[in-house]
Amino acid sequence: MSTQWRGFKGNKWKNEVNVRDFIQHNYTSYDGDESFLAGPTQATETLWGKLQELQKEERAKGGVLDMETEVVSSLTAYGPAYIDEKTKDLEKVVGLQTDKPLKRAFMPYGGIKMAAQACTTYGYEPSEKLTEIFTKYCKTHNDGVFDSYTPEMRLVRHAHILTGLPDTYGRGRIVGDYRRVALYGIDYLIEEKKKDLANMGDREMIDDVIRLREEVSMQIRALKGLKEMAATYGFDISQPATNAIEAVQWLYFGYLGAVKTQNGAAMSVGRVSTFLDIYITRDLNEGTLTEEEAQELIDHLVMKFRMVKFARIPSYNELFSGDPVWATLEVGGIGQDGRSMVTKNDFRFLHTLENMGPSPEPNLTVLYSSRLPKNFKHYAAMISVKTSSIQYENDDVMRPIWGDDYSICCCVSATQTGKEMQFFGARANLAKCLTYAISGGVDSKTRQQVGPAYRPIEGDVVTYEDFLPKFMDMMEWLAAVYVKTLNLIHYMHDKYFYEAAEMALIDTDVRRTFATGIAGFSHVVDSISAIKYAKVNIIRDETGFPLEFKTEGDFPRYGNDDERADEIAVWLLKTFITMIKKHHTYRNSEPTTSILTITSNVVYGKYTSNMPDGRKAGTPLAPGANPSYGAEQNGLLASLNSVAKLPYEYALDGISNTQTINPDALGHDDEERANTLVGVMDGYFNQGSHHLNVNVFGVDKLKDAMEHPEKPEYANFTIRVSGYAVKFIDLTREQQLDVIARQAHERL
Amino acid sequence: MSTQWRGFKGNKWKNEVNVRDFIQHNYTSYDGDESFLAGPTQATETLWGKLQELQKEERAKGGVLDMETEVVSSLTAYGPAYIDEKTKDLEKVVGLQTDKPLKRAFMPYGGIKMAAQACTTYGYEPSEKLTEIFTKYCKTHNDGVFDSYTPEMRLVRHAHILTGLPDTYGRGRIVGDYRRVALYGIDYLIEEKKKDLANMGDREMIDDVIRLREEVSMQIRALKGLKEMAATYGFDISQPATNAIEAVQWLYFGYLGAVKTQNGAAMSVGRVSTFLDIYITRDLNEGTLTEEEAQELIDHLVMKFRMVKFARIPSYNELFSGDPVWATLEVGGIGQDGRSMVTKNDFRFLHTLENMGPSPEPNLTVLYSSRLPKNFKHYAAMISVKTSSIQYENDDVMRPIWGDDYSICCCVSATQTGKEMQFFGARANLAKCLTYAISGGVDSKTRQQVGPAYRPIEGDVVTYEDFLPKFMDMMEWLAAVYVKTLNLIHYMHDKYFYEAAEMALIDTDVRRTFATGIAGFSHVVDSISAIKYAKVNIIRDETGFPLEFKTEGDFPRYGNDDERADEIAVWLLKTFITMIKKHHTYRNSEPTTSILTITSNVVYGKYTSNMPDGRKAGTPLAPGANPSYGAEQNGLLASLNSVAKLPYEYALDGISNTQTINPDALGHDDEERANTLVGVMDGYFNQGSHHLNVNVFGVDKLKDAMEHPEKPEYANFTIRVSGYAVKFIDLTREQQLDVIARQAHERL
Repeated sequence: MSTQWRGFKGNKWKNEVNVRDFIQHNYTSYDGDESFLAGPTQATETLWGKLQELQKEERAKGGVLDMETEVVSSLTAYGPAYIDEKTKDLEKVVGLQTDKPLKRAFMPYGGIKMAAQACTTYGYEPSEKLTEIFTKYCKTHNDGVFDSYTPEMRLVRHAHILTGLPDTYGRGRIVGDYRRVALYGIDYLIEEKKKDLANMGDREMIDDVIRLREEVSMQIRALKGLKEMAATYGFDISQPATNAIEAVQWLYFGYLGAVKTQNGAAMSVGRVSTFLDIYITRDLNEGTLTEEEAQELIDHLVMKFRMVKFARIPSYNELFSGDPVWATLEVGGIGQDGRSMVTKNDFRFLHTLENMGPSPEPNLTVLYSSRLPKNFKHYAAMISVKTSSIQYENDDVMRPIWGDDYSICCCVSATQTGKEMQFFGARANLAKCLTYAISGGVDSKTRQQVGPAYRPIEGDVVTYEDFLPKFMDMMEWLAAVYVKTLNLIHYMHDKYFYEAAEMALIDTDVRRTFATGIAGFSHVVDSISAIKYAKVNIIRDETGFPLEFKTEGDFPRYGNDDERADEIAVWLLKTFITMIKKHHTYRNSEPTTSILTITSNVVYGKYTSNMPDGRKAGTPLAPGANPSYGAEQNGLLASLNSVAKLPYEYALDGISNTQTINPDALGHDDEERANTLVGVMDGYFNQGSHHLNVNVFGVDKLKDAMEHPEKPEYANFTIRVSGYAVKFIDLTREQQLDVIARQAHERL
Repeated sequence: MSTQWRGFKGNKWKNEVNVRDFIQHNYTSYDGDESFLAGPTQATETLWGKLQELQKEERAKGGVLDMETEVVSSLTAYGPAYIDEKTKDLEKVVGLQTDKPLKRAFMPYGGIKMAAQACTTYGYEPSEKLTEIFTKYCKTHNDGVFDSYTPEMRLVRHAHILTGLPDTYGRGRIVGDYRRVALYGIDYLIEEKKKDLANMGDREMIDDVIRLREEVSMQIRALKGLKEMAATYGFDISQPATNAIEAVQWLYFGYLGAVKTQNGAAMSVGRVSTFLDIYITRDLNEGTLTEEEAQELIDHLVMKFRMVKFARIPSYNELFSGDPVWATLEVGGIGQDGRSMVTKNDFRFLHTLENMGPSPEPNLTVLYSSRLPKNFKHYAAMISVKTSSIQYENDDVMRPIWGDDYSICCCVSATQTGKEMQFFGARANLAKCLTYAISGGVDSKTRQQVGPAYRPIEGDVVTYEDFLPKFMDMMEWLAAVYVKTLNLIHYMHDKYFYEAAEMALIDTDVRRTFATGIAGFSHVVDSISAIKYAKVNIIRDETGFPLEFKTEGDFPRYGNDDERADEIAVWLLKTFITMIKKHHTYRNSEPTTSILTITSNVVYGKYTSNMPDGRKAGTPLAPGANPSYGAEQNGLLASLNSVAKLPYEYALDGISNTQTINPDALGHDDEERANTLVGVMDGYFNQGSHHLNVNVFGVDKLKDAMEHPEKPEYANFTIRVSGYAVKFIDLTREQQLDVIARQAHERL
């Protein structure tokens, strides 16, 4: 490998697959400012122009430009394809999911009914042949899951107390270490996987070993498929990349393999910025690449990530609005040795938001630490002020747990790159669970007995002493059915829709986390506070059902830095994850939880009745770990302080906090605003908090965009919602109204 | 169910699926003789004539009459079909596997390559569409197995020290309780399975529960499919059968479902005779059926069992010669309460061999006890003398283990009907293992290191002290790789080729045995005896490989009632099964072993080198638990005594013994021969022995049949080989020569 690895330092990574070791030995920290950055090239502008035309056309056609109906997506299902055949030479990074840009692939292994419904929703009809094959001969993930669901699981699913179960599509959240393709080439990766296979199951041949053996064989086949796929574009990726342009291309082929074979909700890119900088720096030093060319390369790579699309069904879009794919990509971070891992490339990635304007994808994430170089913090904050397109996660709390080479695998959830995967799915609606504790498991909407028939709360007042054990019992039940349901879904996913192409780029001896989630967090906290500190009267309907609450007296609310409410929040989180941990989790994975809801807070709210905190039936829940709408009375910093009290170790899957700040609250001009924002984030993250989505705009802009989506300035108007970014005009009106209803902080 | 169950006694079986309880409350023992039996009806003769024409045509075409290439076999893949459309009203029992008699179905789920090879071997070509589907979209059992095999497994498979692994077709040996269809009707069976599904996995959702939930859902779907299938023939099997003709038809539909969806090596019918007699007796008593009609019904049912065919590949035929399907069906037996379970119907089943002549299928098995009614023992022995088509198994040793409602699921292996299934496969060639102990794991043929590189035996003489620990080590290794390989095969079988239609007729809470097997038994025993009691000189080739042995001096041989040899046999069996039990077995199944080889003794012998007992390289091993060819020096009874010493509890999967007796050795006429045979069997089985295949003919007849297969008297000439019956002319010449070489006892 002397040619490809010329000039690279270190030895360990040469004798085993170890990208982290390679990075640590070879990256060049950059403390300078953004002045070195180059603008878009002519090629970038041409291609981005074409893509914007296609995006406009896509929106005009109702959100989908084209769909496949005849071909099952696979690594090698299509020949080479380009944004535009006529300008293909302009594309510095090539490779599309299908045979046309923005055309959505046909992926039936998650479930043929859903694949077909995705087509028919947009006026397409899957071929009879494929429908027959996946109905008559090939069983799918969805078939397996529904064969196995218990009546209780169907009931909780139907009642929406568990929502977003990945039982109809890929589970996602698996980040292949796509860098490996560039650093090692496919042949070496195949050899290593073959060694793993040879070194497995020497003792008893138990189910776990058999399953893993089959999986690794499938991985090896997928690696061969990746090579074939690249060859159709004229690239031989059997050997390591020899320069930056190849490194970017090889890495992208790895990712392309993932999105050609899986349609997980989140298909993240991972931590690639510092890695690629090493190749770019070498080329710059060797005089074979200019800064303009380097930026063009990153712009084109990012353009490809902006093009990733999947065919979705309406119920999916309802949960995850705006067509997100969570092509999450990290910049920033500090190494375990204390060095900043910020490179020039981290600037280049953020700069794509300027060169090609704001965009929800890739989901750019800054791994934040107050110890990051000042210039970088400032530049990132400036990008936030200008585009509201990026999010921040606290590297200082994640590094001790996940090391310094983790990737964010969805919105906010860290996984060690190439060493870990997630069994993820859905959220437990604890708000609804709280109402079940009062009603004795009877659903307010259907009046079905959904939860166990525990004794309801009787009388006219909810007392804390009566309520708390009942709520604990109901949470115990919900945690149990939640874990059991996920166990079953992930078993079937492995059986029918295994992610061979992604797992091929992850260590065979993989660490598995089992990521659960909580919805309705703030409303539960505030309701418990109301029950504890005020008087919650029950208003029963004619059947005696506790349909409404009248709360008399004041009570502390989460989001005001009030210890009385915030300690309930910590208690709730710890109690829930402890209950989750009580159970067997699939493949002995490590249970975690998150407080994040994406846009599903709207759907969850629809199915949740009135609550003691005053939240009205059917209205959206507050997203993620955010305080409830209207609860924050003490300004942004008090709100941030409350969220910061939630210990990250209780929610290793992430604690999502989304804040919108009026530009005026931050300063008089962008420079001042960026500086203030850095100060806010330093303070927030130094307290050990986990995550912040930063939006900088006023409500008026949102209202105007909602009423006038046709204005050109709103075409790419991107906002951060819980855990991802989205084009505001791509949200449903219902969700736009929800975003508008959220607190926009006028003061710090 | 008052109509269908009129006159039936007992209650327990009415409140749960419990066919045994129904039988015990309702059967009528019969102690009389065969004089009541009726000859074939005109319809039987017409249909059997047609079928014999088709069989002749089949043989003329090289063994296969017709093959499907366009349709994947399933419960409902075909409409109704008959032996001959023109005479379909003559068929009292209807239902074919495909759309034409003797046409072989296309079954790709075990492995598309093998399904295709089975076609091309006989000049057929599977449709491109199906080949594409099962290559590109649907993974098969075979693919899964080969994805997971370890290099060691491939090696032992290739070296034929493990042979007959069910990695390319259905594993078989699962006997659905087809009687349930008749007694309960499909709707009740669906209800019961739904209850099971509702009652499963209430606590932790572990893999085992998830797998079982999916399986039971598939079973319920299969039950619905059975109903649909029956409906195409104009029958509604949702309710219980109302009379004998329905009971036979319902039961057959159950079995037909099995052979339409699986191509296991053994697809046994089970213990149906006494059960069906209850319906026949009721109809006879009600005056709605005559004995002629009853016999016609059984003749037609048996005719259907004689028609079962599967598409096989050459390597399969090499192992299991003569196109067997092991449609094993039991008669006789004693109940746990001591009553004889012999009914008139047991006579009727044996009588089919007279009404329609001898036939290998169904594999008629007498569950023998010296306490069986004298008339029945005599009649069975007479059938043996006349047709050599039946086998005997010792009910007195099986009943304490399996109860009084077990079925034989292949050649000789008992399983509790409707309560048990087998994970079965292959045999360990202990003869070859013995040569590996001497060579240090190096294969004599390939000179590859197949076994572990233990120290070989050095010097010129094999001493007992040196040999025994080496042989133990090598057996430990072989037992381990054997169990591991089977674990993996059965995991994949469940994953890709689950027997839903059969398992639907078995209790959900199923008992699973893990059935291993031994080949080369007698040669190992005799070789150890030679090493212990004589002087075994090693003749090494130019490379020093221990290629031949020259044994000086006498040594006792197994098969002569000599305690010195026979105690080695017992030790060998016990040692091997103990080593098997050391390991984890798939789904925590109960390990068992068998000493039976079917016709595979020829293939095993081909790959086994010279042995210390004097057996020459490449010559066939003795079949099953039989003494070696030429070893028996003390007549039939001494041989039987040796085999009888093997404790059944060490080989719960069965101990197969095949003997050929010259008619003259038994008596001067058939009457005397039958009486003598009964005496021989009483003595043999009273010693606790397990099984006996009885052939009554001389070697001259075999030689003549080999040279003149065209003679009409040989068209249906059936003989018993190890564990099944076969038409002699359907054996390969190699196997015919092997059968001729076996000891035909001229004296008792």
